[in-house]
Amino acid sequence: MAFNTENHPGVSPTVPKATHGFVLNHSMLRVKDPAVSLDFYTRVLGMRVLRKLDFAEMKFSLYFLARVTETDEIPEDEGTRTAWTFSQTGILELTHNWGTENDPDFKYHDGNQQPQGFGHICFSVPDLAAAVHWFDENQVSYVKRPEQGKMKNVAFIKDPDGYWIEIVQSSLLNKLGT
Amino acid sequence: MAFNTENHPGVSPTVPKATHGFVLNHSMLRVKDPAVSLDFYTRVLGMRVLRKLDFAEMKFSLYFLARVTETDEIPEDEGTRTAWTFSQTGILELTHNWGTENDPDFKYHDGNQQPQGFGHICFSVPDLAAAVHWFDENQVSYVKRPEQGKMKNVAFIKDPDGYWIEIVQSSLLNKLGT
Repeated sequence: MAFNTENHPGVSPTVPKATHGFVLNHSMLRVKDPAVSLDFYTRVLGMRVLRKLDFAEMKFSLYFLARVTETDEIPEDEGTRTAWTFSQTGILELTHNWGTENDPDFKYHDGNQQPQGFGHICFSVPDLAAAVHWFDENQVSYVKRPEQGKMKNVAFIKDPDGYWIEIVQSSLLNKLGT
Repeated sequence: MAFNTENHPGVSPTVPKATHGFVLNHSMLRVKDPAVSLDFYTRVLGMRVLRKLDFAEMKFSLYFLARVTETDEIPEDEGTRTAWTFSQTGILELTHNWGTENDPDFKYHDGNQQPQGFGHICFSVPDLAAAVHWFDENQVSYVKRPEQGKMKNVAFIKDPDGYWIEIVQSSLLNKLGT
């Protein structure tokens, strides 16, 4: 085999045949105001919207975002593009329950205050210092700047709903942890 | 350009140069008992562990999992593999705060009960009926089976901590939403 993976308590010694072709497609976060979140994720983080799906009867919309490269062959036809979107990996789904953007007191839970659960999403960037400069230019809020705390070279910013986004430069992390 | 993406209120008309090379690397979920979660994610969902990182001073461990194929060239050297892991997309990070597995009352928050925020992760599978059969063979809990509710062909299972995992077969979803 061309790969090596780690064994730890609980890890299956083999990949069961029944799981062949499974793909980790997306993570879903609820957002209060899609116009604000889409500006953040498409402009500040450079993602694109593959599909928006509306569910009028249930009063919500879903936005599927991805980092896109020039070589990605995204289907034009909307139905085909919906199916294609669900076949990819590294997708972010944003759910908008209609009307939350009009309630000044409405706020989603970030998972890091109590009660805890979900922690964060993470973007890998080619140049951490340049990314920090870009985030500062765009008045992005930080949970932790790279030079703060015990984990050097790891930053955490906040998205418009307060969800934590880890920012790392992979080449700086070869000595992380033990 | 070889791709077409959607415009909606808030969407940036262009991808800023400062974001070139950004990659959506991972999503992080806290888990109570890594042995139980690793069995679920590696055996039932077929993921592999790329790296485990221990932080003894802060008493937690991180597990980075991915779907791996025969053509993936995973570095043998641990430091190199850590850096490589942070350059990929479609990674799941599980955080284990030491000792939670010994507290019978300890439970993480799934984000779908109040207070809401994070919703779910999603796996795309080649054959939804076969996947459901596999999950039933492994006594996996369902939030919603594919035939239940308004969204046909979309299932939600629960991981050992109760986090929701959407299960879809992409080719069945070309008519989803409007």
